[in-house]
Amino acid sequence: MTSATPPRRRGRPPRTKSADAPAARDRILAAAREEFSERGYDKTSMRGIAKAAGVDSALVHHYFGTKEQMFEAAVEVAFSPVLSVRDSVLEGPLDGVGERLTRTIFGFWENPTTRKPLLAVVRSAVNHEAAAAVFRRLLATQLLYRIARRLDLPDAELRAELAAAQLVGVAMLRYVIKVEPLASADPEQIIARIAPVVQGHLTLP
Amino acid sequence: MTSATPPRRRGRPPRTKSADAPAARDRILAAAREEFSERGYDKTSMRGIAKAAGVDSALVHHYFGTKEQMFEAAVEVAFSPVLSVRDSVLEGPLDGVGERLTRTIFGFWENPTTRKPLLAVVRSAVNHEAAAAVFRRLLATQLLYRIARRLDLPDAELRAELAAAQLVGVAMLRYVIKVEPLASADPEQIIARIAPVVQGHLTLP
Repeated sequence: MTSATPPRRRGRPPRTKSADAPAARDRILAAAREEFSERGYDKTSMRGIAKAAGVDSALVHHYFGTKEQMFEAAVEVAFSPVLSVRDSVLEGPLDGVGERLTRTIFGFWENPTTRKPLLAVVRSAVNHEAAAAVFRRLLATQLLYRIARRLDLPDAELRAELAAAQLVGVAMLRYVIKVEPLASADPEQIIARIAPVVQGHLTLP
Repeated sequence: MTSATPPRRRGRPPRTKSADAPAARDRILAAAREEFSERGYDKTSMRGIAKAAGVDSALVHHYFGTKEQMFEAAVEVAFSPVLSVRDSVLEGPLDGVGERLTRTIFGFWENPTTRKPLLAVVRSAVNHEAAAAVFRRLLATQLLYRIARRLDLPDAELRAELAAAQLVGVAMLRYVIKVEPLASADPEQIIARIAPVVQGHLTLP
């Protein structure tokens, strides 16, 4: 029985047929997120992603181009929950935008499923200029500049970035460096302190 | 002439004599700072540090113990300018502590000589739990808990950490990720916006 099965070649699964293309693309993207999260930007290779996804590396290059472009696609997936609520955060009244933004960002960091890819993005961006460039572009164009447009003030972009800095800094000390008592503090206690600061950066004269 | 000289063994410089001990210790420390800065925690080895310092790796272990302990000593050197002004920042009147602290921290980030080791510490701490533990311990015991003691409020440690979070976040977005316009903004403009936030976290009821 087993002798009838052709021997499977190690490390090089057969090339996926074109009928499976969307499924293969999704598998590659999922594998890329996992590889970048686990190993960081530097130690992740296109070949490793291909292997984890069970496809040929040529297919990874075909769909996603360079490693930097592959990283960008993986980061966009990690960012997508943030982007999907972005417009509702920005559409509400301006005097509550600080709290809505703070609550939304903390929601993602508090949820282990969304925290993991965010952590991976931060870790990679801190250590690799290519990853930093991707993060910078997405953060600026997809989030900060849109907040700024909603504010409609001459220094709106700087305001959005200083507000983001407060949120990024809390995330760094609470979830990455894990300084106590901040790391174990009740999220509501932190939101109560941070939301007015975010609001102040955004709208205070 | 050359035949009289004993052949020098490659990669293993002769052990430093004990009379040179302080000089050798300083050389190791300088080499460690350089190696951790350039390569990051993961890629730095005790053997690499020894080679860069021109000593035997046994001497590195003799003076500094494990790689984590070596990193701690190197970080303490990177931290020492901050620590050396810490007490004067904390001794002044409490209603100006936000501006003094903000100005001091920005001073170190704006100066390329002190920025480089700070960047190295942040990069290592974000990616390695051993490095994060060192950074966490130093940041908490040497800076944050001392600020908290100066405040003498029941939630003083959390206050100090939220203030630090604002400073850490600005450093991340300005010096590490380099988001514009924050990365090129006039430091005085940033200090004017950040100092009241730091002060508010520390002392506002």
